[in-house]
Amino acid sequence: MKEVQGGVCAPKGFHAGGIRCGIKNNAAKKDLALIYSNSFCTAAAMFTENKVKAASVKISMENIAGATIRAIIANSGNANACTGQAGITAAKKMAQFAADALLISPREVLVASTGVIGVPLPIDKIENNIDALKKSLRNDEQGHSDALEAIMTTDTRKKEIAVEIEIGGKPVRIGAMTKGSGMIHPNMATMLCFITTDAAIIPSALNLSLQFAVNRSFNRLTVDGDMSTNDMVSIMANGQARNALLTTDSSGFKIFSDALEKICVHLARSMARDGEGATKLVTVTVTGAKDEDTAEALAKSTASSNLVKAACFGADANWGRVLCAMGYSGADFSPEKTGVTFKSKSGEIEVCRNGESFPFSEEEAKKILCEDEIEILITNKDGDGKASVWGCDLTYDYVKINGDYRS
Amino acid sequence: MKEVQGGVCAPKGFHAGGIRCGIKNNAAKKDLALIYSNSFCTAAAMFTENKVKAASVKISMENIAGATIRAIIANSGNANACTGQAGITAAKKMAQFAADALLISPREVLVASTGVIGVPLPIDKIENNIDALKKSLRNDEQGHSDALEAIMTTDTRKKEIAVEIEIGGKPVRIGAMTKGSGMIHPNMATMLCFITTDAAIIPSALNLSLQFAVNRSFNRLTVDGDMSTNDMVSIMANGQARNALLTTDSSGFKIFSDALEKICVHLARSMARDGEGATKLVTVTVTGAKDEDTAEALAKSTASSNLVKAACFGADANWGRVLCAMGYSGADFSPEKTGVTFKSKSGEIEVCRNGESFPFSEEEAKKILCEDEIEILITNKDGDGKASVWGCDLTYDYVKINGDYRS
Repeated sequence: MKEVQGGVCAPKGFHAGGIRCGIKNNAAKKDLALIYSNSFCTAAAMFTENKVKAASVKISMENIAGATIRAIIANSGNANACTGQAGITAAKKMAQFAADALLISPREVLVASTGVIGVPLPIDKIENNIDALKKSLRNDEQGHSDALEAIMTTDTRKKEIAVEIEIGGKPVRIGAMTKGSGMIHPNMATMLCFITTDAAIIPSALNLSLQFAVNRSFNRLTVDGDMSTNDMVSIMANGQARNALLTTDSSGFKIFSDALEKICVHLARSMARDGEGATKLVTVTVTGAKDEDTAEALAKSTASSNLVKAACFGADANWGRVLCAMGYSGADFSPEKTGVTFKSKSGEIEVCRNGESFPFSEEEAKKILCEDEIEILITNKDGDGKASVWGCDLTYDYVKINGDYRS
Repeated sequence: MKEVQGGVCAPKGFHAGGIRCGIKNNAAKKDLALIYSNSFCTAAAMFTENKVKAASVKISMENIAGATIRAIIANSGNANACTGQAGITAAKKMAQFAADALLISPREVLVASTGVIGVPLPIDKIENNIDALKKSLRNDEQGHSDALEAIMTTDTRKKEIAVEIEIGGKPVRIGAMTKGSGMIHPNMATMLCFITTDAAIIPSALNLSLQFAVNRSFNRLTVDGDMSTNDMVSIMANGQARNALLTTDSSGFKIFSDALEKICVHLARSMARDGEGATKLVTVTVTGAKDEDTAEALAKSTASSNLVKAACFGADANWGRVLCAMGYSGADFSPEKTGVTFKSKSGEIEVCRNGESFPFSEEEAKKILCEDEIEILITNKDGDGKASVWGCDLTYDYVKINGDYRS
């Protein structure tokens, strides 16, 4: 697997573009994106589990049921959530405008929105700019980059990747972009992730591969415990790599799935690092748990704890909070057999052994925790279960950003 | 029910005291407390549900099983949690020292600790000061006040109450103190609450009454989503009011239970208001839910949301975050029938009706949300379920306090 340039435009046949249509208040920011495959695609997608779902999510859920998708239209600056029947109508219109411009069916379009909740979507701005949006389509790095900018909200950096793998001697590419920094919690939150690939793969295999990758990546990501109304991860596969059609039994299926998982983990880590106000990427890894689910639950509880996150911000080796967070996770483990080690590029330091304090140098621990990437390594002695969860620290800036997001 | 002075010393026969023995770093702060009844008591207690339990909790759980308790010894500055067998030994010694000083059995003593986790408890400091602690006992406001000061950690205000009710013509008093401001989440977190009463009541009735009160108060309190290793709520009843012995069938049982619930709700609200770094008390009330459990789940999810809490801090009428938090609560409700109103002493303003934005003045909403007590009123149309949950805003100071608590 090698990294390549071009993001979602790296795989053959994909075009992307982004423009400003005027939804965001900031006149310098793009807010409308389009991704398009010039040929038929199989597709799969996963959506927020929040009971309150944005209109765009509802329409996309309907359309993905058909499993053939050729385009995604997405706006930022307005979530089109809690907007009632008018919101549904607006989301349908978004799909229709894109379909009309691209000469495809509206059922072949996924719709995504992100931004403030409860404000009517100014659909006329999208209608008035649909031609400009279509004209912005390019099948290169620039097209990808424009589309990515147009879906970003409080994101401070671009989160993207593209890779090339070989399946049966054919080069196959996968490209992806994602937005999301606040409201990110296991089971997906305000995140949009659009993945493209030129692999030839049947829908059921594509779906399985996506679920597996998302469960090991975005669903192990936590920023602030809130889950949004608008989350969506989608993948379109247009088969232009001309590899032998992948099914779950193909030898190439594992190669494809491994690559997809790596891409999603890369993006999940980038999102944690870009958590609202975050100064540190915090990776919590539990080993020796009873099973993988238990390891994941223990790691999630730790990475989600406001007290652990605040301690990471303050570079305070307060391992008691780690045990405390594990203790209220609901997961089964033996506190008296638990060990905790802090690690970063400055070294590693064992701070807890068998559930008790293990003598350590506070000074050395502080040095390790001052780095911008920290690992909290938790060992149990209950089995072979292992999982990593990604999160970030809790900072003044998180409070500042979210104290008055709308203005 | 009328309020009286004296806290835990208001009921007949109770003495309390507090001193500094040197566990806390700050040389001006008391850190060791004692509460004592001069006659036999029935008792009940509830403890943290965290799988990682402090040594003091383990010992108190053993002792409360006997149901006759005459004293509580409590220290602040050290949680005696994650301290292994040495911690258990230290907690047992605390009970023994108190018992020896008071000439009672160590099985009649509850032990409580609060403070930093994972540091050995300096039990010699307690041993060396046990006589001074005993001498500090007084059956007046001052004794109560000294004991309360000695259990406080990051608390910024004293949280206490005492009331008098009449049962069968006899005046009966209930007094209480509590500490806790951070790590407070439904199902109890670093909170200690010691309640005394001179009511005559059988153990099973006392236990039922306490559980009912705690479930409607402390278990509906959320500050930061973390649950501590050390929580404990206890009540001792010494019968010195000489009322006819209360059972669950007595007419006086409801009077007693209602008073206990009011006391616990009062203290829970005080704790929310004193949340670490909090500037506002936020009460979330859900009405019209399918049932009370559903109402509680919806209110808890809302009051616990970092995004809702940050919006309260910023006085931002971002009602979409309320619906969003309800949506991921896992509780059943109809988003399209939900209403949201913000209320404070400056007025009230409807911001969401039938799951959609209801036109409102941002300026007026801001004014309402700038008060230091805010209510978020959520209406559903699914049934008669109603519940209130107390929380606070998320502020810069929360991050500051918890970024480096240990130093």
